[in-house]
Amino acid sequence: MGGVMGQIDRRAQLAGIVVRIAAEQGLDHVSVREVAAAAGLSIGAVQHHFRTKDAMLLAAFRHYADALTDRIRSMDRSGSPHDTIRRLLFQLLPLDDARSTETRMFIAFAARSIVTPELARVYHEGLDQLRAVLTRLVQVAQDSGMAVTHLPAETLARTLLAVADGATLQTVTDRSEEAREHAIAEINTALDLVFANG
Amino acid sequence: MGGVMGQIDRRAQLAGIVVRIAAEQGLDHVSVREVAAAAGLSIGAVQHHFRTKDAMLLAAFRHYADALTDRIRSMDRSGSPHDTIRRLLFQLLPLDDARSTETRMFIAFAARSIVTPELARVYHEGLDQLRAVLTRLVQVAQDSGMAVTHLPAETLARTLLAVADGATLQTVTDRSEEAREHAIAEINTALDLVFANG
Repeated sequence: MGGVMGQIDRRAQLAGIVVRIAAEQGLDHVSVREVAAAAGLSIGAVQHHFRTKDAMLLAAFRHYADALTDRIRSMDRSGSPHDTIRRLLFQLLPLDDARSTETRMFIAFAARSIVTPELARVYHEGLDQLRAVLTRLVQVAQDSGMAVTHLPAETLARTLLAVADGATLQTVTDRSEEAREHAIAEINTALDLVFANG
Repeated sequence: MGGVMGQIDRRAQLAGIVVRIAAEQGLDHVSVREVAAAAGLSIGAVQHHFRTKDAMLLAAFRHYADALTDRIRSMDRSGSPHDTIRRLLFQLLPLDDARSTETRMFIAFAARSIVTPELARVYHEGLDQLRAVLTRLVQVAQDSGMAVTHLPAETLARTLLAVADGATLQTVTDRSEEAREHAIAEINTALDLVFANG
């Protein structure tokens, strides 16, 4: 494939490979050399798209974030705010194999962003966008009298997002059916407390 | 120092160095070679205590877990269950420099335990202990009529722990004062919802 579209396809293909290596083998195995081998390309061809490990991780994280954004955009929103918020939070959990791969990438990325400020910035931009969507949904629930109103919508949204992130952190390291059920119960419990009014 | 006590001191010293390297430079920089250089020891001397990177990380995680357990054991428990639970959850957050180092180690360890089952086992043993302590405290609060009772103590404890883990994940990658305040607010909000009765 040539031209600009070919370049974009190649970048997306490589980002997908980085997500997979990071999820299956850990960040230690993400390198220009490993990615080139997995893609059947020369090291130079990979370096044409991503010069460093951090550049590859950034592309892979954006790949993950885009998939998540697409799922949230196309979510069924016909039910109550309670149902919609639950469905949104469940999108963040590693409940099937594809999402399990994504969340493993997400945790690995978050861990590395502790020591790489540029990654941390992208990570927090993603969190901010997610929090804004969730805040609007909580606000709708409060306005219709279904959610508790003695706390601001943004504060409640932040807390719900923390539950989802904590549940993800625990479930991604224990892929048992029991762990998934606990993660679901944690989100349902938090929602039960926020939607105490109905 | 010779003898068994000298061996134990040396292990603790090396574990402390691993925690610091993992927190400051990331797991990529944790290796027998790097730890030996930071400790002023030969590679052979470090290998005498820890043969592999995973053995070093395990010792470092136990070092972190022991420090946390000590803090929780020595916690002031004279106040209400609400205050005690809040104080326990705050012990998990990176609210000062020492705890910030520990939590960076914890997130790095959790990320690596995605691909290293032995680390995952130790991580979940630690989580289980913490959850048991928290469940007993929530049960006391329920028995005295202060916490909501329509959900089991263990379910509420799991959810509170998820909030703390999610808040830690977010704060460890953003060391601003604002991020710390948000983490505190997330825990206070979850407690406010659980202690809706008083």
